[in-house]
Amino acid sequence: MARATVDLQPRPLTGIVSSSEALEDLALRDDYALNPQYVEMVIEAVDRGDTERLRELVGALHPADVADLMGFLSADYREELIPFLAADDLAEILSELDTNIREEVLEKVAPAALAQALGDLESDDAADVVDDLEDDKRHAVLAALSDTDRAAIESSLSYAEESAGRLMQREVLAAPQFWTVGQTIDHVRETADDLPELFFDVYVVDPAFKPIGACPVSQLLKAPRDASLASIMEQVTEIQVDMDQEEVAYIFDKYHLISAPVTDTGGRLVGQITVDDIVGVIQEEAEEDILALAGVSDAGRDAGVLDVVRARLPWLIINLATEALAVTSIALFQAEVAKVVALAVLMPIVSSVGGNAGTQTLAVAVRALASKELNAANAKRIIWREMSVGIMNGLSLALVMGAATYFFYHNDRLSLTVGLALVANIFTAALAGILAPLILERMGRDPAVSSPILVTFLTDFMGFFAVLSIAALILL
Amino acid sequence: MARATVDLQPRPLTGIVSSSEALEDLALRDDYALNPQYVEMVIEAVDRGDTERLRELVGALHPADVADLMGFLSADYREELIPFLAADDLAEILSELDTNIREEVLEKVAPAALAQALGDLESDDAADVVDDLEDDKRHAVLAALSDTDRAAIESSLSYAEESAGRLMQREVLAAPQFWTVGQTIDHVRETADDLPELFFDVYVVDPAFKPIGACPVSQLLKAPRDASLASIMEQVTEIQVDMDQEEVAYIFDKYHLISAPVTDTGGRLVGQITVDDIVGVIQEEAEEDILALAGVSDAGRDAGVLDVVRARLPWLIINLATEALAVTSIALFQAEVAKVVALAVLMPIVSSVGGNAGTQTLAVAVRALASKELNAANAKRIIWREMSVGIMNGLSLALVMGAATYFFYHNDRLSLTVGLALVANIFTAALAGILAPLILERMGRDPAVSSPILVTFLTDFMGFFAVLSIAALILL
Repeated sequence: MARATVDLQPRPLTGIVSSSEALEDLALRDDYALNPQYVEMVIEAVDRGDTERLRELVGALHPADVADLMGFLSADYREELIPFLAADDLAEILSELDTNIREEVLEKVAPAALAQALGDLESDDAADVVDDLEDDKRHAVLAALSDTDRAAIESSLSYAEESAGRLMQREVLAAPQFWTVGQTIDHVRETADDLPELFFDVYVVDPAFKPIGACPVSQLLKAPRDASLASIMEQVTEIQVDMDQEEVAYIFDKYHLISAPVTDTGGRLVGQITVDDIVGVIQEEAEEDILALAGVSDAGRDAGVLDVVRARLPWLIINLATEALAVTSIALFQAEVAKVVALAVLMPIVSSVGGNAGTQTLAVAVRALASKELNAANAKRIIWREMSVGIMNGLSLALVMGAATYFFYHNDRLSLTVGLALVANIFTAALAGILAPLILERMGRDPAVSSPILVTFLTDFMGFFAVLSIAALILL
Repeated sequence: MARATVDLQPRPLTGIVSSSEALEDLALRDDYALNPQYVEMVIEAVDRGDTERLRELVGALHPADVADLMGFLSADYREELIPFLAADDLAEILSELDTNIREEVLEKVAPAALAQALGDLESDDAADVVDDLEDDKRHAVLAALSDTDRAAIESSLSYAEESAGRLMQREVLAAPQFWTVGQTIDHVRETADDLPELFFDVYVVDPAFKPIGACPVSQLLKAPRDASLASIMEQVTEIQVDMDQEEVAYIFDKYHLISAPVTDTGGRLVGQITVDDIVGVIQEEAEEDILALAGVSDAGRDAGVLDVVRARLPWLIINLATEALAVTSIALFQAEVAKVVALAVLMPIVSSVGGNAGTQTLAVAVRALASKELNAANAKRIIWREMSVGIMNGLSLALVMGAATYFFYHNDRLSLTVGLALVANIFTAALAGILAPLILERMGRDPAVSSPILVTFLTDFMGFFAVLSIAALILL
């Protein structure tokens, strides 16, 4: 866990900037984002080969902003910056960098300097960095670490990615329940150097090191020195070490936790997770849903053209294939289309509006599943609701589109055809939009990933098929 | 800020359940979500009119789970539960409830009971609840509050919704810099009752009550009693009281803050924001983006059919209108379509794949804007990248679709037509997908809200127009 320790209050930009304090002011905009002008200044300094200026510019930034700066630069400019990363800040900068940029920086830093930096990080952040190292370098860096640090990192890496074990830090403050508040505070003062830099709870443990309660640090301060921990402790929510990080985030959010003890399968305390790590997880999970629903994976802000193509082309090819399948319904009715070309004009509207109705239902369902607001307890009710909404939206849209069609074509059967088709397709959209994610979730799959393909295919197919088959029945 | 204080470790369900501890075990699944069977048991108890059982079932739940239970029930069942909400838990349950359910519950609770409950909440949570009250009731409740509580709530409500002022709690622990650690701890012990239930930082203030530093509570414990606050304090990141909550969340995430002081326009300390409130904001903002991209607003999990229709129909009607505009290009070329009906089959594919390519670019751009990873510093580079990706994806897809078209129709000009149209449309999608959100953001609008309409329209129009105009040139 890292913490801001610089004064970040933004002030207006004025005239020529030279002193380091003035640089700090210039670095951030009012919204605390890195100032684009500052990035420009860094680029100019690199172009001029002005290393003195570069050192000044990089030195004036908080580690999180150095990491942000690296993300805004292209790879060749970034490389020029690496020698100017302050050794003291290296650990924190590394833990803030985007993964692909981090890999790039790690290649350029000597194993000894890396080992030194990792020693400053908490075990979860250090493990993340080590995980990104090439095998050779990883061995060199691990060898250069102290035994304790190495053991902590290796233990962290032994847990699955995105598990509680990977998210936790091993550094915790635990105390037996018979200790008094005074004893505990004295212990903290004496062992200050071995404790996590920041902690929010003292975990009360039994002789088998199982957590039986927690004292928030603020309670420890409020209570009289002679009170026992047992008398002031609160019950705790334990996190199992193999729990998925998404579940951990759900628990933190639901119970407003600041920190929670992590226990192994035997129930022993093995570490703690703090809420600042959870903020990152929540951002990540929400982003995954946004991108999955749009059929794209994140290539990273710094990705090259080919990486981005690789992240997007596969889904577009699948989309091309399913769409080709959907239009087979048009191919089946080519004779009808040739007779009434208006059908070719109207079909895409029915398909498109159906697709959008499906996307709406899908987005709401995926979000409700993610926040566990939709499950077996209310699934039946929600399915009914979506079907009713589908019918009502379908009828409303059919009236609008039927009237518009009549206005342009003066053909009541054509109006009826598109109206009925629209009702059928909006209903299909509602049904597919709610059932696809529910079924995928039940099968243990991510409902955001495969549902859009299915819903888009069904509504496109139904859009064409409904218009043409109804036309064949009543129009031709 | 609320906190979990019950033992939530799930255990397997076994046999008949009667004791209150067994009920607690049954209430939650392994993933800490409310057990659907438990919801079923509540429904059955209501149906049987078994008030004793109902009291037991509701009483065994953590307030956050009572709120969750209410969300899973339909309105009439929910009403039956209200009398069984424990007075002690009422405050916390209210602050956890979905907004529309909360309004329903608030109507049923007497002003005196409400005032009592509000006194237990921190000022930000209490203000949220008061904000939901009808005018009459609001006056009655405010009148029943203590002067201090009323002033705190009224002051909170005087700030704009979604601002830092609304998010903050007024309860803070501030101390002058010349105080020692020992003095500060003694002060905390003496005034324990007036302090926030939990706090993570002591803010060090100057005589004008402007924050000049912060001591994390864990540092206070580690430092010797005679150390001065000035010697151990860290610099702080101040939040201005009128800052938007999205900006506040960005700062907390970027600098891994646990709590931050809020200052008024004069720079005086007026409150603090803690990270657990930020977790909610991040969830909310990410959810808003997901739903905006899908063209739907959230009606709430408990919304009725009409509410949901209202949340979705307007966008579908706009979609119907823009799609009608897009197909005008088909109407212009009806003669061509009648001659080569294959065009009617192939056009929708070009439109659909273009729409998906646009959605991909859009989702990535909206996410990058939200996380401030895309701004003036790299916009030009990202626009170039998206255009290159558009060309490459367009060419790849054109090859696939051109070949498939030739396979089915044995007409090289038709293949060329759809291939060229696909390149044009994927390029249009890339350009619109990146420019629309950038321009909307520059105009101070939410890029997630209006971009999808524009991108969908452009790619649909271009899909039809490109196929038909190229066909008119080279095919017919």
